[in-house]
Amino acid sequence: MRLIAFEQGGRAALGARLGDDVVALADVVPGLPAEIPAAIAALNLPEGAAALAAKLEGAPRRPLAGLKLLPVVPRPGKIICIGLNYVEHAKEGNNPIPDYPAVFFRGHTSLAAHGEPLLRPKVSDKFDYEAELVIVIGKTAKHLTEENALSVVAGYTCMNEGSLRDYQRKGAQWTVGKNFDRTGSVGPEIVTPDEIPQGPNALRITSRVNGQTMQDSNTSDMIFSVPRILTILSEVMTLEPGDIIATGTPSGVGYPRKPPVFMKPGDTIEIELEGIGILSNTVEDEV
Amino acid sequence: MRLIAFEQGGRAALGARLGDDVVALADVVPGLPAEIPAAIAALNLPEGAAALAAKLEGAPRRPLAGLKLLPVVPRPGKIICIGLNYVEHAKEGNNPIPDYPAVFFRGHTSLAAHGEPLLRPKVSDKFDYEAELVIVIGKTAKHLTEENALSVVAGYTCMNEGSLRDYQRKGAQWTVGKNFDRTGSVGPEIVTPDEIPQGPNALRITSRVNGQTMQDSNTSDMIFSVPRILTILSEVMTLEPGDIIATGTPSGVGYPRKPPVFMKPGDTIEIELEGIGILSNTVEDEV
Repeated sequence: MRLIAFEQGGRAALGARLGDDVVALADVVPGLPAEIPAAIAALNLPEGAAALAAKLEGAPRRPLAGLKLLPVVPRPGKIICIGLNYVEHAKEGNNPIPDYPAVFFRGHTSLAAHGEPLLRPKVSDKFDYEAELVIVIGKTAKHLTEENALSVVAGYTCMNEGSLRDYQRKGAQWTVGKNFDRTGSVGPEIVTPDEIPQGPNALRITSRVNGQTMQDSNTSDMIFSVPRILTILSEVMTLEPGDIIATGTPSGVGYPRKPPVFMKPGDTIEIELEGIGILSNTVEDEV
Repeated sequence: MRLIAFEQGGRAALGARLGDDVVALADVVPGLPAEIPAAIAALNLPEGAAALAAKLEGAPRRPLAGLKLLPVVPRPGKIICIGLNYVEHAKEGNNPIPDYPAVFFRGHTSLAAHGEPLLRPKVSDKFDYEAELVIVIGKTAKHLTEENALSVVAGYTCMNEGSLRDYQRKGAQWTVGKNFDRTGSVGPEIVTPDEIPQGPNALRITSRVNGQTMQDSNTSDMIFSVPRILTILSEVMTLEPGDIIATGTPSGVGYPRKPPVFMKPGDTIEIELEGIGILSNTVEDEV
C-alpha cells in the first residue's frame, strides 16, 4: 500500500495511490477521522494494510496528476530527527561516532511536499541536502523492544532533511538550522512495510543534485538501526500515530565538500530510497 | 483576561477564569473552533481581550474546582524552548554566555497540566526543575522586529521545564532529556498582556521545592528579552497561534548544587511568575 496526503477542499486528505490514480480513503473507510494522524491510527497499520487494499477494488479513482500533494503527514504530533547515524557522515563532519543518538525535533512549519519548491531563506545560503529514510508511526507506543518495535510502524517514506549549516552551529543546539520554513521535504508517499520485505535496514539510499549523485549508501550502514531507534526513543517518549522519525543521513552532504555544495534556486534535488520512491524538489528563494 | 484549558466531553476546551468560576468560551463566542490553537487565533489576542471580556458578563459559569485542567495549550503546533537565557544560570553549569540562543523543541507528550503529577521516569532519577516564563503566540508571524514583536503575543504563563539531566547530556543534543513523558508542566492559565502593564521583562520569577525557595530572579535578567526572542525565532520559522515559547530558566536549578537536588515522588514544586500566577505540581514515579 502506498499512501499520499493531498489537498481536498482546503483540508488535508489521505489517499491510496494505485499506479497513476488515487483513491481517497474517506470514500472507502466509513468514519475515517479528518485529521491525518487520527486517520493513520484508524487504519491500524501495518497489519491493516491488507484489509484496506481489499476496499480499494472498484472504488472511485482520480488522477494523481491533478492533485496538490502535501507532506505525507502535514502536521505530525512530533517530527523527530536522528543526527550522525552513519559512520562516514559523522567522520566527514569531524564528529565522534556516537554511542547514543543525537536527537532533535523539527516543526511542521519546516516541511515541504514532494514537488513543492524548497525555500532558501533570506538570511542564509548555506542550504544543504540530507537524504534520509523516514519512519511513520502507526500505533501509540512506549517502551518498545527491538523485537517488537517494527509492529508500530505504519510505513516509510523519504526526506530531504534540509539544513542551514551556519544557523545549525550559531547556538549551542542544532534546532534553529533545522527549522527554517519549508526547508525539509517528506514524501512522495508512505509505503507500508509489506512492500519492503527486506526490511528498513537493507535499502540503498541516494541523493542527486541536478542529476549528479551526491550520496550513495545503504540503510544497513546506520549506527542505530530502525528497531534500535524506536526502542531508544520510546524509552523516553510516547510515540503516536502520525509521528515521523527521520533516521539520519549518510556521507556526501554538501558542506564538507571542497568546494562546498549548497542547494540554490533552479536546482532539482532527488532523494531515492530503494523500494520506497523518489522525492523530488526544486529550490526557490524566500521573497 | 485569564484563560484556562480544561477537559469537556473528552475534548480540550478553552475557558475564561473569573475568580473561582470559569466561563466556557464556546458558550459566548459563536463558531469558536474546537481546536485550541485555532480558537486562540479566532480570539484575535492580544487586542481581542477587551471584546472577549465584555462577552463574559452574565454568561453561564461553572466552578473552577470541578474542572480537570489541561496544559494551557494541550497540543501546540510548536513548543520552542530557549536554553541558557540567564547569565547566572549559564555560569552555574559552566556554560559560556551565548551570543545566539540555544533553541530546542519539546513535544506535547512531555507536557503536564497545573495540578497534574509530573512523572519521574523509570530510567532516570536526575529530574530537575526549571522555572520559566512562557510566551503563548496569538497571531501568525514571520520576520518580526523588536518594535512590533509583542503585538503577536496572546499571553503569558508559567512552565516547570522539567529536565532529565543525564539524558540531556547522553547524546550530542539536549532534546531527549527534555522530552520524557509528562515532565514539563505549563499553566495554570494564559494571562493576556493587558494584565501585565510592566511588560514581560520586569517580572519576579521563583521556584520552590516543598516550600523552600530554589530560584529567585527577575525576567529583566534575561540575556535575550521576550521581543528579542520573538525576533530571532521569527527570522527562521513562522510562529503560529497556540505555539508556546519557554524563555529559559534563572540560576538555582538542582543539578549544580552540592549536593544536587532532584525532584522525587512526594515533592511539591511551585513556579511563580509575578502577575501571572503559581504553577504547582507534585511528582510521582512512572510505573
